[in-house]
Formats: sequence, C-alpha cells, structure tokens
Amino acid sequence: MAMVCLSDFEAYAKKYLPKIAWDYFAAGADDCTTRDENILAYKRIRFRPRMLRDVSVMDIRTKILGSEISFPVGIAPTGFHQLAWPDGEKSTARAARAMNTCYIASTYSTCTLEEISAAAPGGLRWFQLYIHRNRAASQQLVRRAEALGFQGLVLTADLPYTGKRRDDVRNGFRLPPHMKVKNLERAFEVCKMSPLDPSVTWNDIYWLRSLTRLPIIIKGILTREDAELAVRHGVQGIIVSNHGGRQLDEGPATIDALVEVVEAVRGRVEVYVDGGIRKGSDVLKALALGAKCVFIGRPALWGLAYKGEEGLQDVLRILQDEFRLSMALAG
Amino acid sequence: MAMVCLSDFEAYAKKYLPKIAWDYFAAGADDCTTRDENILAYKRIRFRPRMLRDVSVMDIRTKILGSEISFPVGIAPTGFHQLAWPDGEKSTARAARAMNTCYIASTYSTCTLEEISAAAPGGLRWFQLYIHRNRAASQQLVRRAEALGFQGLVLTADLPYTGKRRDDVRNGFRLPPHMKVKNLERAFEVCKMSPLDPSVTWNDIYWLRSLTRLPIIIKGILTREDAELAVRHGVQGIIVSNHGGRQLDEGPATIDALVEVVEAVRGRVEVYVDGGIRKGSDVLKALALGAKCVFIGRPALWGLAYKGEEGLQDVLRILQDEFRLSMALAG
Amino acid sequence: MAMVCLSDFEAYAKKYLPKIAWDYFAAGADDCTTRDENILAYKRIRFRPRMLRDVSVMDIRTKILGSEISFPVGIAPTGFHQLAWPDGEKSTARAARAMNTCYIASTYSTCTLEEISAAAPGGLRWFQLYIHRNRAASQQLVRRAEALGFQGLVLTADLPYTGKRRDDVRNGFRLPPHMKVKNLERAFEVCKMSPLDPSVTWNDIYWLRSLTRLPIIIKGILTREDAELAVRHGVQGIIVSNHGGRQLDEGPATIDALVEVVEAVRGRVEVYVDGGIRKGSDVLKALALGAKCVFIGRPALWGLAYKGEEGLQDVLRILQDEFRLSMALAG
Amino acid sequence: MAMVCLSDFEAYAKKYLPKIAWDYFAAGADDCTTRDENILAYKRIRFRPRMLRDVSVMDIRTKILGSEISFPVGIAPTGFHQLAWPDGEKSTARAARAMNTCYIASTYSTCTLEEISAAAPGGLRWFQLYIHRNRAASQQLVRRAEALGFQGLVLTADLPYTGKRRDDVRNGFRLPPHMKVKNLERAFEVCKMSPLDPSVTWNDIYWLRSLTRLPIIIKGILTREDAELAVRHGVQGIIVSNHGGRQLDEGPATIDALVEVVEAVRGRVEVYVDGGIRKGSDVLKALALGAKCVFIGRPALWGLAYKGEEGLQDVLRILQDEFRLSMALAG
Repeated sequence: MAMVCLSDFEAYAKKYLPKIAWDYFAAGADDCTTRDENILAYKRIRFRPRMLRDVSVMDIRTKILGSEISFPVGIAPTGFHQLAWPDGEKSTARAARAMNTCYIASTYSTCTLEEISAAAPGGLRWFQLYIHRNRAASQQLVRRAEALGFQGLVLTADLPYTGKRRDDVRNGFRLPPHMKVKNLERAFEVCKMSPLDPSVTWNDIYWLRSLTRLPIIIKGILTREDAELAVRHGVQGIIVSNHGGRQLDEGPATIDALVEVVEAVRGRVEVYVDGGIRKGSDVLKALALGAKCVFIGRPALWGLAYKGEEGLQDVLRILQDEFRLSMALAG
Repeated sequence: MAMVCLSDFEAYAKKYLPKIAWDYFAAGADDCTTRDENILAYKRIRFRPRMLRDVSVMDIRTKILGSEISFPVGIAPTGFHQLAWPDGEKSTARAARAMNTCYIASTYSTCTLEEISAAAPGGLRWFQLYIHRNRAASQQLVRRAEALGFQGLVLTADLPYTGKRRDDVRNGFRLPPHMKVKNLERAFEVCKMSPLDPSVTWNDIYWLRSLTRLPIIIKGILTREDAELAVRHGVQGIIVSNHGGRQLDEGPATIDALVEVVEAVRGRVEVYVDGGIRKGSDVLKALALGAKCVFIGRPALWGLAYKGEEGLQDVLRILQDEFRLSMALAG
Repeated sequence: MAMVCLSDFEAYAKKYLPKIAWDYFAAGADDCTTRDENILAYKRIRFRPRMLRDVSVMDIRTKILGSEISFPVGIAPTGFHQLAWPDGEKSTARAARAMNTCYIASTYSTCTLEEISAAAPGGLRWFQLYIHRNRAASQQLVRRAEALGFQGLVLTADLPYTGKRRDDVRNGFRLPPHMKVKNLERAFEVCKMSPLDPSVTWNDIYWLRSLTRLPIIIKGILTREDAELAVRHGVQGIIVSNHGGRQLDEGPATIDALVEVVEAVRGRVEVYVDGGIRKGSDVLKALALGAKCVFIGRPALWGLAYKGEEGLQDVLRILQDEFRLSMALAG
Repeated sequence: MAMVCLSDFEAYAKKYLPKIAWDYFAAGADDCTTRDENILAYKRIRFRPRMLRDVSVMDIRTKILGSEISFPVGIAPTGFHQLAWPDGEKSTARAARAMNTCYIASTYSTCTLEEISAAAPGGLRWFQLYIHRNRAASQQLVRRAEALGFQGLVLTADLPYTGKRRDDVRNGFRLPPHMKVKNLERAFEVCKMSPLDPSVTWNDIYWLRSLTRLPIIIKGILTREDAELAVRHGVQGIIVSNHGGRQLDEGPATIDALVEVVEAVRGRVEVYVDGGIRKGSDVLKALALGAKCVFIGRPALWGLAYKGEEGLQDVLRILQDEFRLSMALAG
C-alpha cells in the first residue's frame, strides 16, 4: 500500500489500530458535526491561482514566537500516544525534531515530560496544560516543563468538562493497565474527582503568568470577543481550535473562526490554528487567512500508528511537499 | 446495548415496537419534509462558544407559568401511550414527576385524566384539548382537568382535519381493540363524524376562557401574525409547533418559526417550542433563541418503549446532562 | 398495494409498463436536470400556515377561460396514451369528464379527435397543436377541433425540434405497429421530413387567430419577455411549461418561472403551469404564486397505466383530497 | 452499446483502457475537487429559453484568430494519445481536419510534430509548448512548429511543477517502453531534471514573441489580474483553463473564471475555455458567457479510445448536433 496522502495513513490506522484506540482518536462530540465541519470548511475555500511568477526558489521556513521551524506545520497536543505506538510521545518528539518543527506535548501524555525531553534533546517543544483544581499540581507541571527546556506553555481553555464522545462511552474507554498518564500520577492521588477546574476564568492567566517566564499560548479560542480578551490578558499566542470537534458540537469550523480571530487580534499576538488539516493546500489556506502556523492532531497519530517516528515523519514530509507544491501552483 | 444518546432509544423503539405503532409515532405528513426539517434546522444553527468563564456551578431550573421545573424540558402531548408501554400515560406521568418537570397530557390518551392524576399525585401537568363539534364534550373535559389539578390548558390549533400520513393509511392504522381513547368515550357516542370542529376561530378562545380560570396555552403557532393574534386573544403561553411535521407538510421548522414568534410576542407571554429536539444542545439553542422551555414528543415515546417510566426518565436524564454540559462548554 | 399518493401510481407504472413505454413517458432531455428540478423546486417553497380560521366549508371550484371545473387541476397534453392503456385518449377523456375538469388533447394522440369527442360528449376539452410546415394540415386540425366542440387551442411553442432524450435514442423508440398518430395520418403523407416548422414566429399567432374564433393558449413560456410578447400577440392564456423537462435541459423549473410570468402578465390573461405537480400541496403553491389552474402530465399517464379511466380518476381524486386538506391546514 | 452522449464514450474508455492509462487521463490533483467542479459549475448555470424565434436556419461556424472552423469546439492539448489509440496524435489530427476544427497538439505528444502534420496536411493546428530550462529546446520546437504550418503557439502557464495526481503516484505511472515523448527526445538528453523551468515569468512572453511571427495564446489563466497581464504582454488569445483540474486543486471552475476573464479583457483579445464540457449546451453556455470557442480534453481521448479518428469524429459530431439543438431550443 503506497502512502501517498494523509488519507492513506488514516485508512491504515483505522485498519490496524485496536477499535477502542481508533474510536478514541477519531471521536467527535455528539453527532461529530464540528469534527467533520473542520474538514469541509477547508474545501469550501477556493484559491485564485496566479501564473507566471518565478517559483523556482521558495522559502517555506517560518518563526513561531521567535523560533525557526522548517515549515509552518507543528504537532498539536493530543493524548495517549502509546495507544498508537509503543514508544508513544518519545517517538513523536523524535519525529518533530527530525523534521525541525514544534511539538506541543500534552498533559495527557503516556510518557513523562522528562522522558520526552530525553528522547529528543534540543527539539523545539511547548507544553500543553490545564488548570487543575489542585493548583499546586499545575504549578509543579509548569516548573518541570520550564526546567526541561520547553519553550512555551499552551493553556487549553475549552475543556472545563470533557465533551460527550458517544463511542468512548459505548466502549467504556480507559487506558489499558500498562499505560499511565504519567505526568499526573502524583496529582491524581490527591484528587478523586475530575482533576480539571471548571471555575477557571481569564484571571487565572495572571496566576499562570506569575509562575513562569515562558510565553503563554491560549488554545481553544473561536470568537473575536475571546481573542480580544486573550490579548488583553497578555498571552503571546492564540491557537484557534475546537479541540478537534471533541468538545462542544456544532460550533464553528476552526478555519472559519480563524478569520474573525485574526481580524480581532490585528497582529498584536501570533495566531495559529488546528483542526481539519489534511493536505498541504489546507496549510496554505490557513496561512493566507492569517495563521502563522498550523498544528496537526489526528494525522500525527495516524503517522505514529503506521510506523512510529518514521511514519510521523512521512506524514510531515508529505504535508511539506504538498505545501510547497501548492504554493508554487498558486503563484 | 448502551443507551448513550436519544438515537439509541429511537433505534430500540424501531426494532421492538410493532410496525404499526412505530409507523404511527414516526409518521409525518406527505413526504415527511417538515418532520425531518425540524431536526435539520437545529443542525444549521451554530454556537459561538465562549471560554474561561466560571462554569463550576450552573442553575438549570426554570419556571413555566409560575411553576418551577428542574430543567427546561417538558413532555409534549402525544396520543396513545399504551402503544408504547402497557401502563401508558400513567408511566409518563410518573416519569415526569420523578424528574420534576411538566407533562402535557393529550386528549387522545389511552388512560383517563383521572388515572393519570392518580398515578402521580402532585406532578405538574397541563391538559391538551381540541375544540369539539360537541362543545359540551370540550366543556366537560376542561372541567374534569381543572378539578383534577391540571394547571394549564393547551389548545391545539393546527388540527382542523388530520394530516395525511401515508404509512398510517397503508397500515389502516387504528387502536388495537383493548385500547381506548378513554377521555372521549362518551363524547364519541354522540358524534359519528370526526369529533373535531374545523370551524373553530380565534373567538373560540374567548369561549374557552369563559369556562375556566386555568391559563390557556395555544399550540401550533408558526407565524408572527398568529402570534400577535394569540397575544391579543389573551392566551398565557404559545407553543411553537408543527405537530411534529404530521399536519401540513412543507411548512417551516419549528426552531426557525420560533425566531419570528419570539420577536412578535416581545415578552408579553411565554413562548415554548416542540419538534426536532434530539440533544441537550438543541435545548440550549431553543433557549438562546427565546424559548422559555421545550417539549419533547417522539423521544418521550421512545423512552416509554424502552422501559416505561424508567426509560422515559433515562431519556430526560440524558437530555438534562447534555444540556448542562453544552451550557458549560458554550460558556 | 394501496394507492395512497401519486408516487404509488408512478411505482406501479414503472413496474408494469413495457420498458420502452415507461422510458418514453419518463424521459427528460439530456441529463434530466430540468425534469427533476420541476419537482425539487416545489419542495423548496415553504408555507406559512395560519391557524384558527373557519375551514369547515371550502369551495375549490374555479373557472378557466369562463368554464367551471371542479378543482384547479387539468390534464396536460401528452402523446400516445395507448402506450399506457388500450383505450388510450378515450379513457383520458372519460376520466376528465367524470371529474369535471379540463383535458387538453395532444396532436400526438393515438385516437382521433372524433373518437375522443365521441367517448365523452360534453366534456371540457382543449386541443393542443403545433404549427406544421404544411400549414393546411394545421388549419385542417384547427377546423376539426372547433367543429367537434373543443373550447380552446393550445399552441405548443417550445418544440421547433424535438429535445434529445437519451433513453429514447437508445431504445430506438417508435410506436408499435398497431398504434398510429391518427390525427396526422394524412398530413404525414405529404411530408417526409419532421412535420413541425422550426421557422414559426410570433407572427404565426396572427395567422392562427385568423383561422378560428377559439381562445388561443400558448404553452411553453418561461420568461417575462416572452410572456409580454404573448399578451401583446393576443393570446387568451399562457401555460408556463418546459415540456416536462423534455426539451431544453437546464432551463428553469416551471414553478420558479411562474413567478416572473405572473408578474409580467399583471392579470391581463390567465396563467397556468404544468410540470412537477406531485401532491395537492403543490397545486396550492402554484395557485398561491398566481396560477389559475395547473395541469398534470406524467401522473395522468400513471393513472391510465394503473386502471385506465378509473386509475386516472383515482389520481385526480387523490390530488383533489390533498389539495383540499392542504388548503384547510394552511388556513 | 449505442453511443448517444459523451458519457457513453467515457464509460467505454473506462471499461476498455488499461487501468494505468484510464487513471492517467482521468486524474485530477489531490481530491479531484476542481476536476469535478469544472462539470458541476456548468450544471449550476441556467438558461432562460426564448420561444417562437425562427430557428430553421442556424450558422454555427466561427473564426478563431482569423481561421474559420465548422463549429466552436476544438481539441485541447493533452499528452500521450498513443495510450488511447495506436496511431495516437495522427488520428487526432485526422479527425480534427475531417470535422474542420482546430487541434492543439501537445508538446507531450507520442508522435512528432512532423508526423502529425503529415497525417492531416492542411488542417488547422496550434502547437502547445512549455518554456524549458533549456531555452534552445523551446526555441527549436517553436521553429519546427512554425515551419510545419502550425498557426498558433499555446503557452501553458500553469505547470511550473506537475500537480499531485494520487493515482498516478500509486500506479507509478510512466509511458510503456514502446512509446516516447518524441518531440523532446533530444532535449531530454541534455537535461536530467524536470525539463520545465519554474522560474518563467511574464517577461518570457517577450522572449517567445521574439522567436516567431505566430500568434501566442496563453493557457491556464483563471483571474482578471492575470488576464490583464496577458493582454498587456501582447498575447493574441487566452485559454481559461485549470489544466483539467490536474494542477492546483480547489481553484475555480473554468466556466466561473471565464466570466471575470472576459470582463477584464473587454474584447481586446480572444478568450477560449476548456474543462468540463460534456454536452452541446455547455458549449452554448460558454459562448453566452463570452468565450469565442471551447476546447475539449478528456472527451477527445474517450473518442480516440473508442475508435481512433472515427470515434473522435463521433464525439465531435454529437457535440455539434447537441450544440445546434440547444441553440434552437434556447431561441
């Protein structure tokens, strides 16, 4: 089976992953309308291709918060990479470094931050976090990430509670016994209810700010109003995201929301987007609409499921080639 | 089979109900366009989710015509509950009371008003009625309902004649011999033709008003013009409804009609809506567009078909949980 | 098999007619886009139903060019009724008379005008004609129709050449040897090429006018410009029609074209419409948009195919009942 | 199997061509969205048919850059005709001459320009070229074409790099050993990398101009901005084209782009269009929107695959008949 485009990796993962893992990665909230809209919205956007421009040399490198990456596609935070590949997030970190791009490690990793760092020293990494009821747990995670050389903190704002993903409920999804949410092992001990705090507000950004000198990127913004609030509360970046359509169903597609967020932000902070990226031309569309960089979630997991770090590199390389080609063809 | 969302109850009912009963409950007029539009119209409405608001405590109680209910979802009037579950409307009444919400009992119940009242004393109930050719029959029903403690009269305005439901014609639908429209047993004796009066006009509201001190809620309004007339004729509430798409096909979806009705009413009376509610987020959309409360029809019957009052409670509980979650996630 | 709605007759005809006959009746030009659009366009039109109006008595009779019919649905001109039922147009004439409505007999009938007249004396009938290269043939037909008591002449304007109906080409469609286009038997003898004259223009209306005192109705108008021309050239009626989607594919649906034609005509002549009528509510929509009456083509043939004149009466009766019901339910 | 419309030829070719050849001809870039949009966009355009105009005599001849063709449909440049029929481009040239229309021979022909010329002396032919890294190779091709009596040079502007056609990658598409890109045999020897130059700009039109007295037609324009540039750089004609949807996916359909190009050009040069023509009425639509002539790509290959030059003539004749009929029916 030739791996020609990202759908090939999706088909492979669907075929070879255990159903419970595939379902978990594929899940969207409720009717999965928003999950699917993320993709459909890209298809509705049309290029106006220009001809006879010199496209013999193209520079596709970019910088995010000052760090150069080889092309504007990073790895979005997703949980439980060992469900896709035995080495889990260690493979992800290695692939991202090999491709010289940014990897946002999830709090819900099946490897510790320390293992991730050790697997690919020197790679560009950000750390995704939630604010926990137990603020000390959050604070400890921030300190660890900072100490390990993570270069950004990504605060997920759209998960006061977990969205309703029907297949996960049906499957009674939980991690197999040999996998653990290692970063939180100690935190879970002190907290029997859901460890995430649904009472978090914009003021908690100030608290987070006080803990660290790292840039804070807020993830999950979908409206101009919240984009304005984010800028005012001093974040350095915004990831326009609907959590892959896994939280509130029937909100906007991220590429549609990107337009109003970019407009509201007026260049004051960097804006990124995730959700629905399936082709290099999707990356070009996102950039044309004002994103500085995009992040991929499920496609990264399909790459892992195919061949670990090698498979993820394949996915990134295909996106890179397609992105470069579509830039050339669009003039 | 895990019952995770309302569609699971629908699938169960379709599988286990006798075809003639399933067809009767599922039926829409003509091509069923409006029946299906009721659902599709909800899907076209998009949220603008807001982030980082304190959603740790949410109060989802509401009041309808002064009575508190535990969350803004009641039971719409539908006929023949014994087709779904042996105890029929008695189970419905018990489930509604258990969930502390409002049940609108249909004239076409297979239990008498007295049986319904006795099954769940103290529950909040309204009574749905038509105006009969034999006005004395209508008057008698109103008196009985009032005496039994029903707290509202719901006048159905959209059934001067019964809509054409093709499957019912094909099936030659009628009640099995052991079931009866018990509330009308005596009325039917004096009236060989359809007992409903197609000559009813707005002035009959005054007649109804003269019979009772109960609030009158009119059901079946779909336009701003009729909403204005309803207010002027002194009703206390309006249920925006197209009878589940069972009367005139190719009219508006109720959630679309709600917008113009709410605008016309300008808060002078309470406005409710039924038709097409399948998820907690549908409830949130209806409330965001001005409804005070929604009523569910077919989903209640699916719950009954699954496990009687217990099944209906399951349905209500799922809607309640989904409603609360979508409120939190929408900020 | 219960015959509940017009689709049931369609299914019957598709099952029991010889394929070559079914294909001929069902055929649309090219991709059949316009044929199907005729139906889809009705579905896009929505009612605004009004409530609590006295609908106990409704008068659905109407007059077309001064003649009363029992309800506003007539029989459009279609060819070769013997392909559907042995008695052919004689059955059609009988059914139309029995239902007290208007039947437009086609030039391409498999019975003569004389046979049609004799089959149902006293019925309201119009005669559909083309203008032939051999003007004498046309003149003779007009004289015969007039002498036989036909009360209107319907000039088909949209067939300078026959549209491309792929299945007819594939099937090598022609009438079986025992059927004949009897009205034209003599005309065909003098004319080896297509008998219809593609050089006909608006001035030929004057010529037709000079031949007869019958009202002239022009069929096949789809634009405001042509509607204006038709009025100026002195026709008494316009049938908005695209020949059932059998001529130019990808023109407008007739119900959409009706709106602009009615607007242009401003009541100076009567406007009718054919194409896509499948339910009584379609009739109501056409009337609400300004048609004085509609005509049905394929559904009449399905009725014939089912049970001859009896089947066609069934079709008309269903439409009548549905029309009356939708009037009542729409208020 | 009767060959009634172009889809019949498509079905034949799909059935009888080797998969690798069918896939190559059918291929679109990425998701094939633009390939399919080319067709769908025609379907969205509606006629406003006019009646009672004298359509007994119609002249469908036209002139492109001063040369008369029998009807406004030419053969677009496509590669590798021997994949469809053993005689390859020689058959194409013969069919085009027989039908008295224009054939644009591709650089990627499997016959030499000399063979093509010799096969059908006197036919109207243009030559399609790219600008090569090796300018001498391009120059030599231009000289050969001019010397052989080709009457126009078609510069393809939308292929700085080849689009990503997934099936071709999966199939490992390359020409069978007995076929060659004969026109480039010598050029390939001096150039191991892709022979096409991605650094070409508008200024290279001046260079091309300096080589030849033939008119230059630019192919691949999709925006008003590029149309203006083309006119300013002195081309004689523009082919609105997206390379059959084989280059950048998710750009505009050509018939949609035609409108803005025609508007920008304001008659200063001739405008043609290719892509998505499947019926004679599509030709009429393109002409009504301002094209002087259309060119067909895949349908020509299907014709070849069916019966060589005879099959291609069948395709052209069907288009001609359909075009004439739709002109008559549209008035």
